Parts: sequence; structure tokens; C-alpha cells
Amino acid sequence: MRLSKYFLPTLKENPIDATVVSHQLMVRAGMIRQTASGIYSWLPLGLKVLRKVEKIIKEEMDKAGALEVLMPTIQPAELWIESGRYEAYGKEMLRIKDRHDRDILYGPTHEEVVTDLFRKNITSYKDLPKNLYQIHWKFRDEIRPRFGLMRGREFLMKDSYSFDLNEEDARKTYDLMYETYFKIFRKMGLKPIALRADTGAIGGDLSHEFHILADVGESAIFYDKKFDELSEADEIDIAQTQKIYAMADDLHIPEKCPIPAEQLVSRRGIEVGQVFNFGLKYSKAMEASVMGAGGEKIYPNMGSYGIGVSRVVAAAIEANHDENGIIWPAQISPFDVVLINIRVGDEACDKACEELYSSLQSKGVEVLYDDTKNSLGQKFSVADLIGVPTQIIVGPKSLALGKVEIKNRKTGEKSEVLFDEVMLRFLK
Amino acid sequence: MRLSKYFLPTLKENPIDATVVSHQLMVRAGMIRQTASGIYSWLPLGLKVLRKVEKIIKEEMDKAGALEVLMPTIQPAELWIESGRYEAYGKEMLRIKDRHDRDILYGPTHEEVVTDLFRKNITSYKDLPKNLYQIHWKFRDEIRPRFGLMRGREFLMKDSYSFDLNEEDARKTYDLMYETYFKIFRKMGLKPIALRADTGAIGGDLSHEFHILADVGESAIFYDKKFDELSEADEIDIAQTQKIYAMADDLHIPEKCPIPAEQLVSRRGIEVGQVFNFGLKYSKAMEASVMGAGGEKIYPNMGSYGIGVSRVVAAAIEANHDENGIIWPAQISPFDVVLINIRVGDEACDKACEELYSSLQSKGVEVLYDDTKNSLGQKFSVADLIGVPTQIIVGPKSLALGKVEIKNRKTGEKSEVLFDEVMLRFLK
Repeated sequence: MRLSKYFLPTLKENPIDATVVSHQLMVRAGMIRQTASGIYSWLPLGLKVLRKVEKIIKEEMDKAGALEVLMPTIQPAELWIESGRYEAYGKEMLRIKDRHDRDILYGPTHEEVVTDLFRKNITSYKDLPKNLYQIHWKFRDEIRPRFGLMRGREFLMKDSYSFDLNEEDARKTYDLMYETYFKIFRKMGLKPIALRADTGAIGGDLSHEFHILADVGESAIFYDKKFDELSEADEIDIAQTQKIYAMADDLHIPEKCPIPAEQLVSRRGIEVGQVFNFGLKYSKAMEASVMGAGGEKIYPNMGSYGIGVSRVVAAAIEANHDENGIIWPAQISPFDVVLINIRVGDEACDKACEELYSSLQSKGVEVLYDDTKNSLGQKFSVADLIGVPTQIIVGPKSLALGKVEIKNRKTGEKSEVLFDEVMLRFLK
Repeated sequence: MRLSKYFLPTLKENPIDATVVSHQLMVRAGMIRQTASGIYSWLPLGLKVLRKVEKIIKEEMDKAGALEVLMPTIQPAELWIESGRYEAYGKEMLRIKDRHDRDILYGPTHEEVVTDLFRKNITSYKDLPKNLYQIHWKFRDEIRPRFGLMRGREFLMKDSYSFDLNEEDARKTYDLMYETYFKIFRKMGLKPIALRADTGAIGGDLSHEFHILADVGESAIFYDKKFDELSEADEIDIAQTQKIYAMADDLHIPEKCPIPAEQLVSRRGIEVGQVFNFGLKYSKAMEASVMGAGGEKIYPNMGSYGIGVSRVVAAAIEANHDENGIIWPAQISPFDVVLINIRVGDEACDKACEELYSSLQSKGVEVLYDDTKNSLGQKFSVADLIGVPTQIIVGPKSLALGKVEIKNRKTGEKSEVLFDEVMLRFLK
């Protein structure tokens, strides 16, 4: 992509309404713009990151045997009346009347819709287990939307819903999703931690929250340092990590904490996902059953598993930035390389840049080519701000020696590389 | 994908509420289920087709230099009051009050939001032209939703919005989108026709509707037979096709038609897209301007370009089916192959199927493997119903001779092929 043709409205100053760093940087880096309170438009750069996060989630969910569906954003109120949550959900549910005065709503979650889909289409024990997921937009009418995507009203979520024949199978599915969540976040270059959680409005008896560790995270979290070792191993030992003490501050009571002080880690984190096993709550309330091998009625044991997809983008920034801007983990960076032509109009620089631009792209490297006539200072600060891992800087002096400069955004290290050897760095 | 693990609830009978063939077949083939009136859930098979349609649109829009963004589904009413359309839009707009009693709405289209995005972020003539597109869900509260996806309430749309410095550039962008639309539909294996259209609620003075030709289409269309020749050529001659007589029945007045009867083609079509040039309507009403080279104020000349993405899926079925079910164009088929094991449990059949299944998948061929214990008749009718282009049938008799059967869903032709040669058919 040529920057001169792109839509990347960057800002030098933090917007006044932005108090957290991910919100500030996403606006400054031209990733998002607010359309209404808690409601954002995604500009091209932001959308590219969102799509990469989605893709990683999709790949791992598919690998775990979950099946992708897409349920509507608008849901009929009747389903929520049936489950008993219509009144209970409160004002965060965006309640709507259609032109025929029927009660509908913008889904804040999809347990009811998926249970309805299940009961109308799955009738035999032979069809179980099933784990259905979607990546779709949801709306929660927060009383005071703030922190940009961290507490927005319209947000992208991956939600999945599992149906198992019995508790034992349901527990296996729960553990598989628990493991998949570790894989997903680690594949994004993030550091997840799983905390024992309350089940809250969803109901049920087993739940973990997944947080991304970040120095400026919203929640204080406390855990036994064994967790780090186990969760960073190649194979995650689910049974072991689930036994280790790890709590957000609302559940951590220092006097009752069983972990000796020297063993207790205190960090900050941002919640990006939660997994629940809620048993028969919805299947019973909504009469979703299958027929067993002996003709008996079986209510499936259900679980649900959410990831705040748009929130992950913000969390990744909270965990990866410095005073100059974002520092993307390579796996979810919008581009692999920013190619900076420091003398646009100079024949040698233009030619070298065009050659690199097309060679890199032909190898599948995603390049943002800064071909603008902006000042050098501006070019460097935009490149740092948008946080792409590698910058290739092409200027007349180095080029006269057959060289270009390569800068690592994270470490700030610069090195001169022979023009002919640049491509070697990007071959896999 | 193994059918035994998939979620494919097919039906033998047409659902009673389904009167058009695409609605009947999408429900019967387990692609969609209704969640509320005019509101559907997409099951895995349907979603795969939807994603393929999206992907083709995205590729061609990117090639045409358009930039992908994502604007929110929920919009503030103020923007529509500014443009003057809030009252005018009528009851098809889903109007909502949020918890603070503010007027918001579920976007039926995004001219206002994109114009707002433009005016807040693009200030100089140097940043033009721009063409911003999204593929996103919209809602129109149809008084009588029917025909499945053909007239649903929640639907997926590709909408793009162009901003040009003057009429001449805007006309070039219009023509580029016109050409891109031909490429998009042809790449999906469909036969598009462009009709001169009214501009209606969007406003402006130049517009074409794109229809897919289908024997059972919703609209009667009339055109000069020259159109077929020109639109089927490798390079579409835009200027020429735009001059040719081609009208939907609401604009075709037989007495005034300039085309001699023997030259006039009368077909049926399904509208799947529309392109508009509406000049300064929104940029002036919403004060979206840029500064020109001499410091003067320039209102950009705008256009908008829509494709009913979910509607395309239905239109493709209307245009491609027979009495046994859907016949997908290969480009948008959910799978490339259905592999039918006619004797599950037979060692040789199972082994041969497993081998084909993994070899084909390793070559990037998407296979639905029918590994169920369903009856032979059921297997064949499901394969025909879901309309995947190629069926590979593995049975003990042929296999004893080292052969499998390959059936072409469209022509019904069957041929016996040596097991070892099956793979050759799928190498590119």
C-alpha cells in the first residue's frame, strides 16, 4: 500500500477525551474514529489488525473442531423471555420496537439464539458433541462508555457455545477451549493468564477469565508464580494451571490467600475473554433436548466461550507500546514493513523503493510504502506511531554505497544492509 | 470436513413459508434458518458461501483501489437530521432510543456516516480521490419480509462511497466501479446485466442497477441483444454497454422502446447491486469540503456503490439449480468435492476414502466427506441438494477394480476413474 493513496489520518496530540493509552494511540495512529458515544468506525489500518486477530481466532477454533455459524445481531425478545433473562438483563440490553411494535433487541450475547437453533435442528444424541462459534458484532448499552474500545457499546466478539451429552464430556470441551484460548493469545504474541472467575449473569458453576498482562491494565491480578512457568511451556498443562492460585482483585482476599508473599505475583491485566460451563441452565429453560440411545430425553450440558475481539486489539496496544507509539507483535501487525523513502523525487531513491516495494510484496510481505512528500521527521514519527515491526529507510547517502537502513521498531536498533541483501531477511 | 461432525440439517420437503426457490433450497440444504421474521442465522454451509462471495468482492474492490473500512451498524440520528433524510426515510429505518433517550438507528445505508468520517479527517485536495468500502450488516425494517434472503430485514451489504474533486473524475470512478461490478459477478460464475436505473432515495442523476439473469428472477428486464456480446467479451467496453438499451420493467415502456422487437431480449433478473453518482448532495448538506490548490473550498463529488452480499447468495441459487437442488458455480461453492463413502465400515472403502480425503485436502481442495451411516439414497440426494460441483463416489465394486466414480453435479455425467488418477484431476 502506498501511503499517498491510503487513508491514515494520524494525529500528533492525544485526543482530549482519551484517557487510556490504547484509546489515545488507536486514534492517533488513524486506526479508529468515534461515530457516536462508545461507537467507532474502523479505518483501514485498524481494520487490518482486527482482521488478523479474527483470523488467528478462527484458525484455532476450527482446529479445536468448532463449527462457524453467524447468528443475527437483532434478536426477538421472546427467546429471552423464555430463558428468563429479558427482565434480568437490565439497561445494558438495547431494547427496540420494530414497525409492527414487536419487541426485538440488539444481541448483547447469543445463548438464547443458539439454544433455539439447537433445539430446532439437532434431535439425536448421535449429533453431539457440537461447538458452534461466530465472530460478530454485539451491542451493550453501557451507561458511561469510555476508554475507547475497552468499554465501547458496539464491539466485535467471538462467542462459541458447546453442547455435550453429559458433565464429563462438557468438562472435556471446557478444558479444550481453555487450552485453545492459551494458544490463541500466544499466537497473537500476547501473554495470557487464566483467572478463576465468577459466573455472573451467564450462570453456571465453572468459569475462568482470560487476561492479557500489561503494566497499565485495568485490573489488578494476583497469582502464584508457578503459573508463568506452566503457561509458557510448549504444551500447556491444563489440569495443573487450573489448580494454581490466580485471581483478579475482586476475588483475591489477601488475608485468605494461601500463597506465601514471596511466591505471589501482583500484576495488572486486561480482560479479553471468559469461558463458562453452565450445565443445563439454558437447555432446560428452553426445552432443548435430544433423544438418547434408549429413547430417553437428554438435556445437553452447555458452555459458552467469549473473546472480545475488538478489545484484544486495544489490549495488545496496552501491552505493547512506548512513548513513541504502538509496537505491534509481528503476528497481528497491520503491515510487516514500513518502507520509508526519505527523498521522494530523487531518481535513485524512487527506483530502489519501487524495486523493494514490488519484490517484498511478491514474497507475501505486507508493505506500507511511505511515498509522501512529508518531512523526514514526520515520516519517522508516523512509522514509530503505527508500530510496524520493521522500517526500511532508503536515502541517497546510504544508497550511493549500495545500502539501506533497517530499523527494528521494538529495540530501536538500526543496521545498514546491502540493498541486494534486504530480500534475504524476508525469505522464510 | 467430515459430515458426521458437521452441522448440516437438510430437509426433504420445502418449508411451507418458502415460496421462492432460493429460499426453499437454502433452508432445505441447511444453509440458513429463520430466527425472527426476515432475520436469519447462517449455518456452516451457508456461511462458507457467503464468505466466498465476500472474498471475491473484496479482491476486486482492492484491485480497483478502494480502501476497506468498517463503520458501525448503530448510527446517531443527528447525522441523518443534518442530511435531511431522517424524516424522509420512513418506517424502513429501525429507529431506536438508547438508555439515555438519545435517538439512534440501525443503519440501512451509510452515506451520512461516511460523509462525517470524510469531513473530520480529509481536508486537502491532495487526499482525493478516495473510495471507501465496507462489507457489513444492515437493517431495513421491511413491512412484509419474504422470499428468504431476497427481502430480509437484516442483510449483508458491500457499500462503497467515492469522493472526487470534480464531475469528470467522479464519472471515471463511476465507470471504474461499473466495470468492477461486471468483474465481480463474472468471477462468481454469474451473468450480470446493467440496467439504467432511477436514483430514488439516494438522490443524484446517474445510476445503474446490476441484475443476475435467472429464469425465475423477480423482475422482468428488457435489453438490446448487443448487450450480451459486449458484456461477455474479455474486456468490458463500459462506454458502449452504458449506451445500450437495458431497462427493468418499471422503466421499460414498450411503445417508447427504440429497439426493434427482433432485437429486444426479454429475460428475468434479480437485482444484486446498484451504483449511483449523486454529485454534491451529501457533501453540501453536511459541509464536507476540502481545500483546493488555491485555498478555495471544494465540495467533493460523491458516488455510492452497493452489492447485496447475502442477496447474491440467493440470486446465485435462483440462477443455478435443478429439481434436485442447488448447482453452485465452482467459484462460490462451499466445497469443491463431496466424497461419498457408500459402504462405511468396509475396510477397503474406509481406507480409500481416508486417503482421498487427506490427499485432496493437502492440495487445497475443499472436501466434504460423507462418512455417515445414512442410506445410499440419502447420501446421493444430500450431495445433489447442496450442489457441490463434483461428487466422488467410493464403493466396494468399483474399488475392487481399482476405480472410483466421479459425478458432475451440473451435467449428471458419471465416469469411472482409476483410484490412482483421481488426484490428477485436481492438480492445477
